[in-house]
Order: sequence, then structure tokens, then C-alpha cells
Amino acid sequence: MVETIQWTDSGVVMIDQTKLPREITYVTCRGYLEVADAIVTMVIRGAPAIGVAAAMGVAIGALHADPDRMDEEMEGICTVLAGTRPTAVNLFWAIGRMKRLYASLRGRPVEEIRAALVAEAQRVKEEDIEINRSMGRHGAELVPDGKTVLTHCNAGALATAGFGTALGVIRAAVEAGKKIDVFADETRPFLQGARLTAWELQQDGIPTTLITDNMAGWFLRQGRIGCVVVGADRIAANGDVANKVGTYSVAVLAKENGVPFYVAAPVSTLDLTLASGDRIPIEQRPGKEVTEVFGVPVAPEGIAVQNPAFDVTPSRYVTAIITERGVARAPFEESLRRLSQQAELAE
Amino acid sequence: MVETIQWTDSGVVMIDQTKLPREITYVTCRGYLEVADAIVTMVIRGAPAIGVAAAMGVAIGALHADPDRMDEEMEGICTVLAGTRPTAVNLFWAIGRMKRLYASLRGRPVEEIRAALVAEAQRVKEEDIEINRSMGRHGAELVPDGKTVLTHCNAGALATAGFGTALGVIRAAVEAGKKIDVFADETRPFLQGARLTAWELQQDGIPTTLITDNMAGWFLRQGRIGCVVVGADRIAANGDVANKVGTYSVAVLAKENGVPFYVAAPVSTLDLTLASGDRIPIEQRPGKEVTEVFGVPVAPEGIAVQNPAFDVTPSRYVTAIITERGVARAPFEESLRRLSQQAELAE
Repeated sequence: MVETIQWTDSGVVMIDQTKLPREITYVTCRGYLEVADAIVTMVIRGAPAIGVAAAMGVAIGALHADPDRMDEEMEGICTVLAGTRPTAVNLFWAIGRMKRLYASLRGRPVEEIRAALVAEAQRVKEEDIEINRSMGRHGAELVPDGKTVLTHCNAGALATAGFGTALGVIRAAVEAGKKIDVFADETRPFLQGARLTAWELQQDGIPTTLITDNMAGWFLRQGRIGCVVVGADRIAANGDVANKVGTYSVAVLAKENGVPFYVAAPVSTLDLTLASGDRIPIEQRPGKEVTEVFGVPVAPEGIAVQNPAFDVTPSRYVTAIITERGVARAPFEESLRRLSQQAELAE
Repeated sequence: MVETIQWTDSGVVMIDQTKLPREITYVTCRGYLEVADAIVTMVIRGAPAIGVAAAMGVAIGALHADPDRMDEEMEGICTVLAGTRPTAVNLFWAIGRMKRLYASLRGRPVEEIRAALVAEAQRVKEEDIEINRSMGRHGAELVPDGKTVLTHCNAGALATAGFGTALGVIRAAVEAGKKIDVFADETRPFLQGARLTAWELQQDGIPTTLITDNMAGWFLRQGRIGCVVVGADRIAANGDVANKVGTYSVAVLAKENGVPFYVAAPVSTLDLTLASGDRIPIEQRPGKEVTEVFGVPVAPEGIAVQNPAFDVTPSRYVTAIITERGVARAPFEESLRRLSQQAELAE
């Protein structure tokens, strides 16, 4: 399996997800501004992967920061990275973690601080893979054997440090011997399903069928889909889930057809400061993502476009939320708070 | 407004809908095989437009048929044209109408037969525009003022001989002075919404916003959409509606959010021989429509694809069916039969 993001001596190396699967190329970010740009332009995307990138961005920023103005520069670095994308909370979680570590090292020699931040960023990455493995173990049990799993967007190895959240559940179910195949929504406008999920699962030899987003409802109605598994960008205290635009529609259609709808996300995706999903900020992306495909225009010039990158699925459509600590079910206020407190105890 | 299809001395001239809006080019079909090919490759598409094309295809076939083997040739022409696409019933309706006329002229001089068939094909076209105008009058009253109308695919002038079914309702509402704007689903894979609906409405100066299909649910949830209006390819006796894939999803999401869901279609779209939509044949189109956009690959090579061109919306999600004879509501068995009998009386 390809590496989504790596810390190397020459910088933070990421596979360029804007070019997949047509070209397998890598981008090397030599400073935090290049990391920020990679997040904004979706060279790297997916809530957990953005978290890892932000942690590495803080670390590489620290390496180049002026030791005499370290506090101000670190503040600036974190502000820039936090401003890249508004919806996925893992970004803010990772930056917060790096900030806390930095604060705890105040007064130590600069080389020690830098080494500690680099090590922490690498730890964020390594932990993410472990978390996904654990999520996979919990989620695999929920996947009906002998049926099709429907997924939306890419919540795979490419959206994380490796293994994946939703695709981690699918991989773990396959590893456990379940005979399943996957239907992947292409996920317009950025085509994460067609370009990334289809490619990832094809490389793993997991049978995968590509469909357009508007076909998902029709296949949910045919009885072939055993469950839906998706990732998440932010989950509110009541279990409302912000995820790639189109997730809400799939959730409604799953419920209408009696198909379980599962969300796989690490505890770092929980934002218990928000009572519901109503106040999760929804990023608007450039209209060109809709009007052009790989630079080819597909709509008349000058047409108005809406391009919200995410939507919010009310928790009443969510059958369960799969985390690395276990599976949360309704009432989510209670189950998510419990999982979140377990995480704090463990830290 | 551009002409979708015209009968000319050099043949049947169609605007090439595979190239819009990037290129405005016309295809001239000089024989019935070229008309059949234009339907298969979607140079012309949309249930009513396919009906007009088929009628003109029969007429142009008759012009070139061997007078000594007229019966066999006409049979072959009709069989080829009927084999082009399976779902839209208007195709079979138009061919049936031409066949009945031909049968009624048996024994007449070949030039008289040919002239009658050509005149009939042109009448099918002219009537279609009148029908759409009438549908527009009935439908305009249902469109809430001051809100947004959501539509899926292209049920516009380009899908008909002119004015459109669903877009005809929108045009009539605008003509009646209603302050509305339109959200157009891009309608993957063929992008009829992005390429055709957005272009048509832009030319008319009707404010239109393009969205991807997977955003429709999210906007239905925001309260901005006053109603959904779509076309239809075939409507069963119980009111189940076959239409462009994705229609079912939009209908479920509209109902879930209390938004009326209207279908605009001529009486020729009714297929009362089918008790329900379960036995409407659903065309599978080539996988390349999903894996390529204007020839640019958007998915890994060798990935499996499903590409049903249509889906069936159960009538319980349909608020009303708008026809040229009036508006049908549940119970649809009764209301549709009544409308259909009115049509027969009038013919």
C-alpha cells in the first residue's frame, strides 16, 4: 500500500491526491506554508490525514522558526495551518496537541523542542494507523457477510496515515474472512470515490464497483447493499455527523430502505463542544470543482454554482458510530461522552 | 431558443447534445439508420424528443424504402428504431402512431404514403410543443412563488420538440410572473443538468445554480427549495415513474423534507399496460460514461462499473403528475386512467 504522508529528511512527502489515479506523483513540503497549501488544494485530504499533515506542518515550521522569536512564530504557524480548512475537527485537534506539547517544553533548548515536536508529529501518524486497525476490529463485526458494502467519498488509507476508517472496517471484514464486495460512490465534485477509493480497493484486490452518487439510492432499494460505512469530518455531542457532501442523502436513503448506516471515525473527530451539528462550519469550495473535471469544462461559462464540501447527517439516521474505543449507539450524548472520557483517561 | 430537431430537405437535423455546451454543432441524419444511431449515442435524448426523432426516422426511412417491398422495409425500419433504447415509452408510442398511419394507407400510391408519413412526423413535433405549453399552464400554478425549483436531468426544450416538460413548467411559472430561481442537479454520468439544463435556462435568463447530484438532499433540507419538478421516461398505471437515474433519490429526499415532488410528462409517457414500475426495463449504458468525462479518464483502468440510465420512483413519493390534460394525483390508478381516456376520446 502506498504511503499517504511521510516525514523525511527533505521535508513532508505526500502523494498528490489531486492527480490520482492518472499519475502517481509525490509532493515534498519543505516548510509549513507548503503544508498549508497542500491541505487547501487537497493534495492531501481526509480528516485524519489532514490532522497528521497539520502536526507535521507544525513540526517543520518549528525546525525553520527563528529561535529568538519562537513563541510568536509558533503562534503564526498554528494560525496559518488552522486556517486551511474549517470543517474537519482533526485539524484543530492535531494543532492543539502540538501546541500543548510546545507549551510544556517552554524554556528548554531549541533543539530539544524541535526534536520533541518532530517526534510527536511522527507519533500522531503512527497512532493513527493503530487507531484505524482498532476501529477495523470493532467495525468488522457489524458488516453483514455475503453482501455489498456501500461507501461514499474516500475514508481509506489515503484519508488517513494508513488502513483507513470506513475502508479500514471493510479491510478488517475481508481479513476476517467475510465475503463482501464494495460499491463506491464516485463522489462529485472531487471524485474521491472514483479516483481514490476505487483505486485503493483495486490495489487490495477487494471487488469494487464504481457508481455515480445518484445511483446509490437505487441500489439501496434493490436489497443488495448490506450496510453503508462512511468516515466523518466532525461529530457533534448528539451524534450529528459532518462528512463529505452527499453523506446526508445516502443516510436518508439507507434508513428509508432499512439498511444500517455506520460512521467510522477516531475519537479525535468528536467535537463535544457542539451540542448538535447545526453549528459545524461547512466549507464552500471553488465553483470550478463543479464546472470543470481535470480542467475540462462541463458546464456553460458564467453559470452560478454552489459547492458545499460537506453536509451534516442528523444522528437519527446513524445506526452506530465506530471508534477505536468501541461502537457508540443512540442515545449518542451518553455513548459519545463515555468514549471521549475513556480517551482522556488513557492519555 | 435553439431547435432540438428539424425536418429539412437534406434530412433530419439535430443539435448534437453530446457536445453541448462546449460546441454548438448539428448532425444531419439522411436515413433511418443515422436517426437510430443518433438516439443510441444520445446525440438526441429526452423521452419526448426521442419520440419525435423516431417518427421522423420512420418518415425518412419510408422516403428511401423500395416501393416494391414497402411493407417489409417499413417493418424493418420500425424494428430498428424501436431497438434503440428500452426505457422511454414515447419511442414506442411514436413508432406505433406512424405504423397505424401506414397501415391505414395500404394500397395508396407510394408518393402519397410518403408525404403522409412526413407530414405526420412533423405533426408529432408540432403537437409536442403545444403539449408542453399546455403542461406548463397546468404546472405553473403548482410552483411556489419566491422559492427555488429543483430539477434533475434535462426535461427542457432539448428533451422535447421545444419548451420542455419540467422546464416548460418552470418557464410557464416565470412567464406568469413568479419570482423563482432554479437549482439544477448536474446529473452524472451524462451531465444533462450541467451541460443542457444550465445552458438552456441561462439562455432564457432564468437564474440557475448548478449543483452536484449529491448536494440536492442537503439543499432540500435547508428549506430553500419550494418544489421539485422532473420529467419522466415511462409512467406505470399505478403512478410509478421511470426517469433519469437519481430521480428516486431526489423524490425520497423531497418527501423526507416535506417538499412537493412533481413529475411533468405528456400522456404519451403513460404506459397503462404495466400495473407498476417493477417491470419497466431499465437500460444499462456503457461503463465509459462513468469512467470518462469528455474522454478524460476519472477512475482507475479496469474498475467494474454499474450504469443504469434510469430508476423507478414509487408513486408514494410523487405529489402529482402534470400532463397536458391536467394534473393527476393519488390514487393514480384512477386519475391516470381518466386522463388517458380523455386523450383517446380526443384523438
